[in-house]
Amino acid sequence: MSTENNDKLIKDLLARVEALEEQMPEDRLALGVMSGDLDKTIAAFIIALGAAAYDMEVDIFFTFWGLSALRDPKKRAKKDMLGKMFGIMLPNGAAKLPLSKMQMMGMGPKMIKMIMKKHGAKSIEELIEDAGKYGIRIHVCTMAMDLMGIKKEELIDYPNMQFVGVGTFVDIFSKAKQCWFL
Amino acid sequence: MSTENNDKLIKDLLARVEALEEQMPEDRLALGVMSGDLDKTIAAFIIALGAAAYDMEVDIFFTFWGLSALRDPKKRAKKDMLGKMFGIMLPNGAAKLPLSKMQMMGMGPKMIKMIMKKHGAKSIEELIEDAGKYGIRIHVCTMAMDLMGIKKEELIDYPNMQFVGVGTFVDIFSKAKQCWFL
Amino acid sequence: MSTENNDKLIKDLLARVEALEEQMPEDRLALGVMSGDLDKTIAAFIIALGAAAYDMEVDIFFTFWGLSALRDPKKRAKKDMLGKMFGIMLPNGAAKLPLSKMQMMGMGPKMIKMIMKKHGAKSIEELIEDAGKYGIRIHVCTMAMDLMGIKKEELIDYPNMQFVGVGTFVDIFSKAKQCWFL
Repeated sequence: MSTENNDKLIKDLLARVEALEEQMPEDRLALGVMSGDLDKTIAAFIIALGAAAYDMEVDIFFTFWGLSALRDPKKRAKKDMLGKMFGIMLPNGAAKLPLSKMQMMGMGPKMIKMIMKKHGAKSIEELIEDAGKYGIRIHVCTMAMDLMGIKKEELIDYPNMQFVGVGTFVDIFSKAKQCWFL
Repeated sequence: MSTENNDKLIKDLLARVEALEEQMPEDRLALGVMSGDLDKTIAAFIIALGAAAYDMEVDIFFTFWGLSALRDPKKRAKKDMLGKMFGIMLPNGAAKLPLSKMQMMGMGPKMIKMIMKKHGAKSIEELIEDAGKYGIRIHVCTMAMDLMGIKKEELIDYPNMQFVGVGTFVDIFSKAKQCWFL
Repeated sequence: MSTENNDKLIKDLLARVEALEEQMPEDRLALGVMSGDLDKTIAAFIIALGAAAYDMEVDIFFTFWGLSALRDPKKRAKKDMLGKMFGIMLPNGAAKLPLSKMQMMGMGPKMIKMIMKKHGAKSIEELIEDAGKYGIRIHVCTMAMDLMGIKKEELIDYPNMQFVGVGTFVDIFSKAKQCWFL
């Protein structure tokens, strides 16, 4: 082959490598927390923290029932009628989340928490605090907030909590290496 | 280095870039809808439409309880005894789907729908219609249809609805950038 | 361009292609089984086997309620008080798993199994056995074992069952092309 031919081939390779670099999923984990179950929310934070320890960037998107985990029982917000109804029906904060199984009228979550404490496992409140320290980003679905009448003022203090729409979430997960819903 | 040496290196690079291009996940989202819950099915369509708006290709795979969302209450199909039993027990169409939480004997879904309407959010029927317009592909699991005695004739009209086995689904999600179950 | 210039460009391309090869997700599927529901666990194994048939490597991670599917009702283990309580409350083996929907006090799972048998579909026990034959790797979350007092001695015989922490799971799914929770 001639040098000119090589010039062409190299130019073509460069363009293709650039395209590949553009398409390559980033070293990021995107989690969607939707269930509002204690066990699933704990799992989300344990995995998020595990991934952060492996230097992955982690984004957690909270929507629907998942929002309950972010409510701060010590805070209040002005709400309309429907918002008040939801406010009463939805668990008021991470400490009040139900289990996805063996709820047993509140006995299940108490039992799980007792066992976790006995084994020196961190509580959900501590896991959330750790997540903030490790730079795990929390994104709150504004559509779900609107629907359930949940206000920013009643949410926990968390570093750089973002309030986003579906478009932003699509943007986040489409670049992530992994994304899943819990 | 000599030109011949460069020729060899370029040939090697070409082969490796081709292999990378082959392996690179495509700009596609694959969703599995299995729960048959109103909230999770709505979430699937909102995310699907969000991804489609970002020019991602979207495939949704419906299986198990998820099939209920695709039933058309105005259509009927001939069924055997077991099929009839399932037909009665399973929700007959998207409008009848239960919530994953706060079902409250049917009050929950009514409340959610009322609130969604109040906020100008689209109903699940409208979301499904939009999905068809945006070229989102719906694949129905034939094994689940067989097990639950659900027939093609009783499903909604949807452009290019596909009836597929697990193999096709594996093929679809293995190429997708993201895949998740709701 | 000169040959020296090409030398430099080729060297740069080589480095970038190597980086891409390093980052490229492997042809692997990672599943997390957390629910302990019969339908979701069956779905996990059907998809795992489908992916294995397409030559994907498959890792399944069992945690929380998911562990019940791996208990062998014929085996026993020494347990403390709490472990015994959990042992009684949790389903003792795959045959005892509940459905995520239409449990109907045990009628639902019986009906599903009857229908699956009628259609010649494999039972969950057979699916697990097949998974072992096809080299699908099962990883058991040691943290969940600790919390629920579940011991290795009471789990089914499965080729090369691994007992792992969250770190290993993060390592597994971060390399996988797809990962999802059921």
